[in-house]
Amino acid sequence: MTTSGLTIALDGMGGDHGPETIIGGAELASIRHPQVRFLIFGDEAVMRPVLEKFPRVAAVSEIIHTDVAISMDELPSQALRRGRRTSSMWQAIDAVKAGRAQVAVSAGNTGALMAMAKVILKTMPNVERPALAALWPTMRGECVVLDLGATIGPGAIQLVQFAVMGEAFARIIFGLERPTVGLLNIGQEEVKGTEQVKEAAQILRTADLNVDFYGFVEGDDIAKGTTDVVVTDGYTGNIALKTAEGTVRLIVEFLRGALNSSLMSRLGYLLAQGAFKALSKKLDPRSSNGAVFLGLNGLVVKSHGGTDAQGFAYAIDVAVDVAAADLVQKIMADLDPLDGLKLSNGKSAEQSTTDESEAALS
Amino acid sequence: MTTSGLTIALDGMGGDHGPETIIGGAELASIRHPQVRFLIFGDEAVMRPVLEKFPRVAAVSEIIHTDVAISMDELPSQALRRGRRTSSMWQAIDAVKAGRAQVAVSAGNTGALMAMAKVILKTMPNVERPALAALWPTMRGECVVLDLGATIGPGAIQLVQFAVMGEAFARIIFGLERPTVGLLNIGQEEVKGTEQVKEAAQILRTADLNVDFYGFVEGDDIAKGTTDVVVTDGYTGNIALKTAEGTVRLIVEFLRGALNSSLMSRLGYLLAQGAFKALSKKLDPRSSNGAVFLGLNGLVVKSHGGTDAQGFAYAIDVAVDVAAADLVQKIMADLDPLDGLKLSNGKSAEQSTTDESEAALS
Repeated sequence: MTTSGLTIALDGMGGDHGPETIIGGAELASIRHPQVRFLIFGDEAVMRPVLEKFPRVAAVSEIIHTDVAISMDELPSQALRRGRRTSSMWQAIDAVKAGRAQVAVSAGNTGALMAMAKVILKTMPNVERPALAALWPTMRGECVVLDLGATIGPGAIQLVQFAVMGEAFARIIFGLERPTVGLLNIGQEEVKGTEQVKEAAQILRTADLNVDFYGFVEGDDIAKGTTDVVVTDGYTGNIALKTAEGTVRLIVEFLRGALNSSLMSRLGYLLAQGAFKALSKKLDPRSSNGAVFLGLNGLVVKSHGGTDAQGFAYAIDVAVDVAAADLVQKIMADLDPLDGLKLSNGKSAEQSTTDESEAALS
Repeated sequence: MTTSGLTIALDGMGGDHGPETIIGGAELASIRHPQVRFLIFGDEAVMRPVLEKFPRVAAVSEIIHTDVAISMDELPSQALRRGRRTSSMWQAIDAVKAGRAQVAVSAGNTGALMAMAKVILKTMPNVERPALAALWPTMRGECVVLDLGATIGPGAIQLVQFAVMGEAFARIIFGLERPTVGLLNIGQEEVKGTEQVKEAAQILRTADLNVDFYGFVEGDDIAKGTTDVVVTDGYTGNIALKTAEGTVRLIVEFLRGALNSSLMSRLGYLLAQGAFKALSKKLDPRSSNGAVFLGLNGLVVKSHGGTDAQGFAYAIDVAVDVAAADLVQKIMADLDPLDGLKLSNGKSAEQSTTDESEAALS
């Protein structure tokens, strides 16, 4: 992998905390990736003075003025109407399509980003619906979980596509030769679960897809690290992710309360401060920031909207990794065996509708 | 509420750790509920010597011999064939139907328990599918989450029924006059989510159900305690629950590692030991043991299979609470307004099929 010649398109107007976070994050990322160049899309009058504060990123960046900023609570359909061609988000993705950048990073509105990415980049051959993939901390390191909310109600064949794409992502990000893939379900037995999940497992077991399919995994297997990749639909994946985030916050709150409950425990806390710092670093949601849209003809990385510069820099790290490894080409090659794979109801991948996915975005 | 005259049927053969846990748990529960009587179903040759070790529960119990014990990995369909009438699980539930006990508690195979409970007790009028409800620790105390795995793929009308049943459960368990109810989704906006969830929200907003409907909640709202009740389908609920359990174990593991990393932090740990004990008590999965099957003409409480006597005693506490409050009658009354409520596709509650739910059990 080489980062030389790599250009990243940044949506300068996306996120809760404005361009300071985006450009500040690029500054931090520049320390780790000095050869990477940036195209920063946004209101030039706003971006210019911010960029002047960050000399390292200023030296490797170009600002491209855009008139429209997509707001965090805009509906995807609205965003598409209002921000088509004119918004920083659209332009950042379009730079990937035009080949001026190898990957786009945005901390903006997820639904709008997904809608625009689909319209501009289109899905790959053999993929009807994109998936959002991210890293999840486990007892054994990290695993890839997808889909985290791009596609509601995927069919069996889409879950199989997610498995193939997630496997390629894990190979690149973790440097594994043969990552294991699990399908999220409510039990390990073959008879359990929804029809889609059962059918997807059947295909993954029997079709010649070059995927090391472990079988069904349950919710607690994610953190256990039972498999390198965990595949699920966007509805379940999003709820699982947010449930885990909520659980982390709850425990941290409980821990804080307990350690403040007596003089003795406060003293103990002071002595063990180093340990708590290490723990809070491990639990820092910023360090797993940066989810990748898989299945499109181009790379888009989604950063948490509420993150800070350090978190945004992590999302840029992910973007550098996937772009330098040429993830799109690798996934396309892996998807070849899906060519002509038929659903049990006779629909091939290409014929399936994307109605539900579109409805979710409307 | 009174516990005088209350009889609890125990499945003496269910669970990973045998009758010692079940009867030992009843002994602990007896200290808190001295007026409660037990019917213990199981192999008399096995149960008798165990019961002799626990004088308190022996004094208020009757052993009823059964020949068959359902194993933890038996398929529900197998369990129904092999254990119909003859198993400790069947007999414990049947005692509720016959009025000899007001509630049954089992730490046995969840799928088998659910299948038998449905066959023996049948669903209430205005309910097609049962739900499994349990308490979940939150920043503000606890909330009720349902369904945790009883029903895969419920339609909108079933989700509405879950909301009504969960609300009644929260009123009784928390002593709240008007608990708030949220519907689990991937965003707060009305346009997001599956068709079933959107339709259920529409009904909960407009129908006259006497439910304080908050709207959509996300995964992290569960631990936040945003609402007193969180409603979801069994597939998502089960995965969310296990994801949260896995997250707790991961953080405890991280914490243990961090505190063992240096002499200083080990010393700090010793000083703050009281705090860590309080924390581990708060995170103790045993203390939220005891999930209730709602929607049946009789009460069945499911204990974790892997729990110990103390955990099983908590499940008995839940059984005492719901039985003493006459939960079944209260839910039935609350469900009255659902009478004749039509689905948008014209099916009334009674006409809907239970195919998917049955398939999940097969």
